[in-house]
Amino acid sequence: MEYSELASFGFDIKDKIASWLNEDIGSGDITTEATVEKNACTHAIIHAKAEGILAGVPLARLVFETIDPGLTFTAKLDDGAKLNNKSVIAEVDGNARAILTGERLALNLLQHLSGVATRTHELSSIISDYHAVLVDTRKTTPGMRLLEKYAVRVGGGKNHRLGLYDAMLIKDNHIKVAGGVAEAVRLGREYASHMTKIEVEVENMAGVEEALSAGADVIMLDNMSPADMAECVRRIDGKAMTEASGGIDESTIEAAAKSGVDVISVGGLTHSVKALDISMDIGEIK
Amino acid sequence: MEYSELASFGFDIKDKIASWLNEDIGSGDITTEATVEKNACTHAIIHAKAEGILAGVPLARLVFETIDPGLTFTAKLDDGAKLNNKSVIAEVDGNARAILTGERLALNLLQHLSGVATRTHELSSIISDYHAVLVDTRKTTPGMRLLEKYAVRVGGGKNHRLGLYDAMLIKDNHIKVAGGVAEAVRLGREYASHMTKIEVEVENMAGVEEALSAGADVIMLDNMSPADMAECVRRIDGKAMTEASGGIDESTIEAAAKSGVDVISVGGLTHSVKALDISMDIGEIK
Amino acid sequence: MEYSELASFGFDIKDKIASWLNEDIGSGDITTEATVEKNACTHAIIHAKAEGILAGVPLARLVFETIDPGLTFTAKLDDGAKLNNKSVIAEVDGNARAILTGERLALNLLQHLSGVATRTHELSSIISDYHAVLVDTRKTTPGMRLLEKYAVRVGGGKNHRLGLYDAMLIKDNHIKVAGGVAEAVRLGREYASHMTKIEVEVENMAGVEEALSAGADVIMLDNMSPADMAECVRRIDGKAMTEASGGIDESTIEAAAKSGVDVISVGGLTHSVKALDISMDIGEIK
Amino acid sequence: MEYSELASFGFDIKDKIASWLNEDIGSGDITTEATVEKNACTHAIIHAKAEGILAGVPLARLVFETIDPGLTFTAKLDDGAKLNNKSVIAEVDGNARAILTGERLALNLLQHLSGVATRTHELSSIISDYHAVLVDTRKTTPGMRLLEKYAVRVGGGKNHRLGLYDAMLIKDNHIKVAGGVAEAVRLGREYASHMTKIEVEVENMAGVEEALSAGADVIMLDNMSPADMAECVRRIDGKAMTEASGGIDESTIEAAAKSGVDVISVGGLTHSVKALDISMDIGEIK
Amino acid sequence: MEYSELASFGFDIKDKIASWLNEDIGSGDITTEATVEKNACTHAIIHAKAEGILAGVPLARLVFETIDPGLTFTAKLDDGAKLNNKSVIAEVDGNARAILTGERLALNLLQHLSGVATRTHELSSIISDYHAVLVDTRKTTPGMRLLEKYAVRVGGGKNHRLGLYDAMLIKDNHIKVAGGVAEAVRLGREYASHMTKIEVEVENMAGVEEALSAGADVIMLDNMSPADMAECVRRIDGKAMTEASGGIDESTIEAAAKSGVDVISVGGLTHSVKALDISMDIGEIK
Amino acid sequence: MEYSELASFGFDIKDKIASWLNEDIGSGDITTEATVEKNACTHAIIHAKAEGILAGVPLARLVFETIDPGLTFTAKLDDGAKLNNKSVIAEVDGNARAILTGERLALNLLQHLSGVATRTHELSSIISDYHAVLVDTRKTTPGMRLLEKYAVRVGGGKNHRLGLYDAMLIKDNHIKVAGGVAEAVRLGREYASHMTKIEVEVENMAGVEEALSAGADVIMLDNMSPADMAECVRRIDGKAMTEASGGIDESTIEAAAKSGVDVISVGGLTHSVKALDISMDIGEIK
Repeated sequence: MEYSELASFGFDIKDKIASWLNEDIGSGDITTEATVEKNACTHAIIHAKAEGILAGVPLARLVFETIDPGLTFTAKLDDGAKLNNKSVIAEVDGNARAILTGERLALNLLQHLSGVATRTHELSSIISDYHAVLVDTRKTTPGMRLLEKYAVRVGGGKNHRLGLYDAMLIKDNHIKVAGGVAEAVRLGREYASHMTKIEVEVENMAGVEEALSAGADVIMLDNMSPADMAECVRRIDGKAMTEASGGIDESTIEAAAKSGVDVISVGGLTHSVKALDISMDIGEIK
Repeated sequence: MEYSELASFGFDIKDKIASWLNEDIGSGDITTEATVEKNACTHAIIHAKAEGILAGVPLARLVFETIDPGLTFTAKLDDGAKLNNKSVIAEVDGNARAILTGERLALNLLQHLSGVATRTHELSSIISDYHAVLVDTRKTTPGMRLLEKYAVRVGGGKNHRLGLYDAMLIKDNHIKVAGGVAEAVRLGREYASHMTKIEVEVENMAGVEEALSAGADVIMLDNMSPADMAECVRRIDGKAMTEASGGIDESTIEAAAKSGVDVISVGGLTHSVKALDISMDIGEIK
Repeated sequence: MEYSELASFGFDIKDKIASWLNEDIGSGDITTEATVEKNACTHAIIHAKAEGILAGVPLARLVFETIDPGLTFTAKLDDGAKLNNKSVIAEVDGNARAILTGERLALNLLQHLSGVATRTHELSSIISDYHAVLVDTRKTTPGMRLLEKYAVRVGGGKNHRLGLYDAMLIKDNHIKVAGGVAEAVRLGREYASHMTKIEVEVENMAGVEEALSAGADVIMLDNMSPADMAECVRRIDGKAMTEASGGIDESTIEAAAKSGVDVISVGGLTHSVKALDISMDIGEIK
Repeated sequence: MEYSELASFGFDIKDKIASWLNEDIGSGDITTEATVEKNACTHAIIHAKAEGILAGVPLARLVFETIDPGLTFTAKLDDGAKLNNKSVIAEVDGNARAILTGERLALNLLQHLSGVATRTHELSSIISDYHAVLVDTRKTTPGMRLLEKYAVRVGGGKNHRLGLYDAMLIKDNHIKVAGGVAEAVRLGREYASHMTKIEVEVENMAGVEEALSAGADVIMLDNMSPADMAECVRRIDGKAMTEASGGIDESTIEAAAKSGVDVISVGGLTHSVKALDISMDIGEIK
Repeated sequence: MEYSELASFGFDIKDKIASWLNEDIGSGDITTEATVEKNACTHAIIHAKAEGILAGVPLARLVFETIDPGLTFTAKLDDGAKLNNKSVIAEVDGNARAILTGERLALNLLQHLSGVATRTHELSSIISDYHAVLVDTRKTTPGMRLLEKYAVRVGGGKNHRLGLYDAMLIKDNHIKVAGGVAEAVRLGREYASHMTKIEVEVENMAGVEEALSAGADVIMLDNMSPADMAECVRRIDGKAMTEASGGIDESTIEAAAKSGVDVISVGGLTHSVKALDISMDIGEIK
Repeated sequence: MEYSELASFGFDIKDKIASWLNEDIGSGDITTEATVEKNACTHAIIHAKAEGILAGVPLARLVFETIDPGLTFTAKLDDGAKLNNKSVIAEVDGNARAILTGERLALNLLQHLSGVATRTHELSSIISDYHAVLVDTRKTTPGMRLLEKYAVRVGGGKNHRLGLYDAMLIKDNHIKVAGGVAEAVRLGREYASHMTKIEVEVENMAGVEEALSAGADVIMLDNMSPADMAECVRRIDGKAMTEASGGIDESTIEAAAKSGVDVISVGGLTHSVKALDISMDIGEIK
């Protein structure tokens, strides 16, 4: 499998797939060993049973190639495709035991990531006429961060920082410890590489003023009303980027976008995922 | 941390927690390193902001103990407790950097597992007056199976098999390959250890008859109407255990229970989890 | 190498082979590097020097394929074959350094597993006219459990549970803690999944009675005389499966089988293995 | 646990113990979780049921300390002690679940390593009045090399090289490839560090002459009669060390020692181990 | 060991130390096992034998604590201290075997990282009166990046990006592929998170103009003469940060700083390290 | 990639390359993902920009093959070749993203190891007319030992022992603990395998006498003047090998060689490496 298809999932994605297969298979798939002959071959079809946005095809391919390099996985749709309940996503040919044993992990990944992409698409569609872009948070499922962040991009969103290591986000607890927004941003600037952006969370206009004076790159407007956000955005006036955050969903996202913020972050994209219904059928044994 | 508190999460749980911390922290929590003094100490409170069933406290403890063995984690509630939006779950004392860096993973775990426990409790409460017990499936989040299955038990459900290795579940695809329910069960019996139970999926009364003749231990009644299930249960009459399966949710679970089945499995307990809102506040720096 | 050939050895078998090669090779096979030219090729023959049952061929293949994917391993006999001191087991062609460096691990595995299979075959042949089947125990060599259990099957035995995770076996120590056979089985039933079988160890007829009342699936008759076992089997009368256990060897196994038990477990199949003599010769250098 | 007690087992011994526990426990010891209360404590005694030489006590301690750092393991005998069927080896106090879950691995290690030490002691006792010392080979159980080599030392033997990396042993296959004993030793000398010893296998006096001319440090007399060995030893006359090798057991080892060789290697010390009978009993629950 | 002392080295630093100990110790420190009694204790002093800046003390502590938690490591100087040939850096007390076995890795780390810090301090001292700050590059020793970047900070420098993941640096090869500076920056901006900074490498004023138009956050002036750099800095005029890069050493760094750039990067800080001479002596055996 | 090409780097070299790629790439090469199309292909040339001895080509190949098995790496020169500032070392063809992402690690390895080989060649050339051979020490970069020792051989040196496990080197601290040179060597001989060489460090003629009486295989003359070394060599007279050690560089190595020692060890070969300047250019995108 080519590097370029897997680059978004982190360099250890092959190890992760192996460990997830191990979680399910453990000491062996005794049902398949009992009921399927060792050398039987078959043809399987992975298909959607609901509407949504597809995500995870390169991972499904990797699951089957990991379990048996002799399997042939043919994608019929690419990530980002719109699915309906008749969509054929991929076909798998080869050793029947390998296909049956890999089925569940491949489906679990497709269902979960397509769920993320579908939800992202629903929310980002609402604000497609606005300047704001929808982004994710660090409220991801442990072990799945890069995969879920990839699915957010597939669904039409963009990503916030990847972790604690690649950008500074000074939150309420840091401000409390540092002794105020201005001092926290100053400490951040002093420590940061010239390649690091600094975002700071504020709760009101006073915070905005402090953040601007201290030279924050991005200002997070946390749990503000749309009206307050709009006022802050006007005051900031392009001197820093702005992010709306805090309990935003389909009922409130348009109002947030209207306030003029650059970015809207929604934890629910990744912390409350509804799996998309995807299934696998096998054909004749050869 | 004592073995007995972690035994449900698999012997590699400490490695998992470390790898999940690594996913978030990577090369370092630059915000905290910039804004919090190296030796600052603080006190933090983890509390619920919604109603539900608590799950994951031993894991939150393990997160903080892994990041810094010097932290003191004091549980105020145990897993299984009913939460409201004022419930204090735990307190953490010690190095402020360590507490802030560990916060997100601890909360992500508590939110996800409490989400599983809460949903399980909702559904199992509906059928509490019936014979049937609610169980999970293998439709779990990759890497989280034992944790999610634990949360199902915390929420009042029981577990189906843990993976492909500990019991046989002969499904439609296996039956197709083996050439029928009876032959598949016969192959299973031949291969199985005397310590292994065999379940087979059937779609109608004909399948039930075959399964009974072949001596299946458990019969899964897949996607049947409540009436058909009731008829099958009567026919089986205790000669095998019975499991209702297929698209069951709060609107259909009581009807399924009324059919007299022993077990009702619901994939949504683990594949479509809504995070419970849980948060952490820190106190003064010492 | 195809999944189906390796499925019995656990999903991590490739990692195990790599770590075992590392144990022997460490920082490098200095003898071979000194005496064999880098690009020299050769032909090697793996052959038996004693009578017995062959086991481990897929692992020997994996050893050579792991050390150098360019090697060609051709099995001349399959696992389960009867060996004599002239049997050619396999041939290996390719880089001479790789073949010489992999030799010892491949032979160590073949010798050990063929030893297990041969001993299993000796004992199971004695009871081939009886109902009872010969099974192994958890007294396996650390790190080799699935391999040794595979070799038991190759030799004509069957497997007991794989580990502490896939079935319940309530032993004397558990009974002591729980306060009696009946209470222990009751606790087991309450905790167990509907997919889990429960076996309980008893020492006399009183234990049998308790086990039956409590609904054990399997009853282990531990260290009983053949006569006592026969009486217990008659009393149980098919209401549970029966297992003979405790110090059984070639001198006592037939008597155990005559008692009518379903299963006879022998720890020595795996804890006291006599290696079968297998060797490798190389041909001309090309 | 102190470094000095574990130094003989390799720096990764803690990882090995963890992986061996994982092999047995997997997703959890369901019998113990069902039948033993979470906080129950007990006292356990590990004792011998046969005569032999004890080996593996530091590993048994590590097993229990790994599973639960709260357990107290008290050795009553040290490795090397002579056991009879009444010997108490160690006591373990603490959480009852942890003790029961760790029991099997601790016993499997003690039984296997005491088996190695006992067999080594039997053979080395036969030659205790001779100059020769008994050594092991690379015919060890995969994954257990350093442990088995330790047990050989405990039993009164010494170790041959540890692996392919720490000394040169030029065997028949290397000689064939290099084109003769003399050329093989010359190539070895050219490649070797000044810190590396070179041993070469010879089959007759001609080989001895070549090995001496080429300056081998050690000469292995492979599968020779005692008379031929004695003649070779006289010819070598201290100009190199001598090793007897090939199918030596209790019936032939004294004759080999009489030939005057420095070292006698026996593969069976580690490839055909008979477990020593060791058991654990638990006391009252507290 | 507290989290806060290790936070700069990445979350996997304990695993790294273990693997580096394993590299040196392998199957055991046979010299120490032979010559030092198992329970002997001693006192050791780690001291400098040359002038420089100290770096690596927390890692030396971790080495000794990893090999034996019973050792007591007492730092006499902290990282950043100026060393002369009489400076005592730390003392270690405890098991003599453990101390001797850990010595080499502890010294190798101290010598290497103090070498980095010392070189950084030499160069950064030259430009201490200028606006510019000295930074490192990705030309680090494989496996040592975070440690070497830490040592750069200890020596008075700052860090460039940590890897390919935390910021964009568009270099000549990317520009060639993308079809020009402007297009490359535009593609970068489109893909980047709002939290990601973008730097672009330019070779002349034309490149500067393109980079400015495209909105680069940082402009790298690659291999320019000081005069050309100064002109570029004037043109950029604070609209982006500026970085001097390319073959800068003690003879050229002041001229680079005079040009007015914000940042000067020097690969040699980490790719050509001269170890600082540091040694360990032990005292009496107790 | 063939085993024989990688055998010198240890069996875990593939894991190391993967972990070093992970260190640099982490969650993804965002610059390349942004600026290079997924399926773009290109041609790259790796070339030297300075004079020296090439080392590391098999590792550069492994880097590119690890990141994408579809890349074609063609070596134009082999390790050991003399480089000038026009030497083309290798060409790489294939996916442009993969090539750009792997560039830095491949170059870091080539630059570092060629630096080691170049320095070794400089020093060993000085003593090429003498009996003495140049060897390395254990003062290597953590994690890079086998690679650096390989580069020493490429540069014309030989290796000292690989680690603490493969030979005994009794140093001042061991002698102090053991109570003298003679006693230390005696303890070493008692413990050592018959396959293990013993070297002892001495500081004067008295030490030489003790070492000879005790039967050391190799005597290290530590920090002696050339005249003292010569006298010791005469006294030893071939009864043991001799090694000069302690602060030897280009100004003193010839005098050391003249003293007649067998081996001269220089820590600076590996602890103070100057990277050789090597670079990569890419061609047109296809």
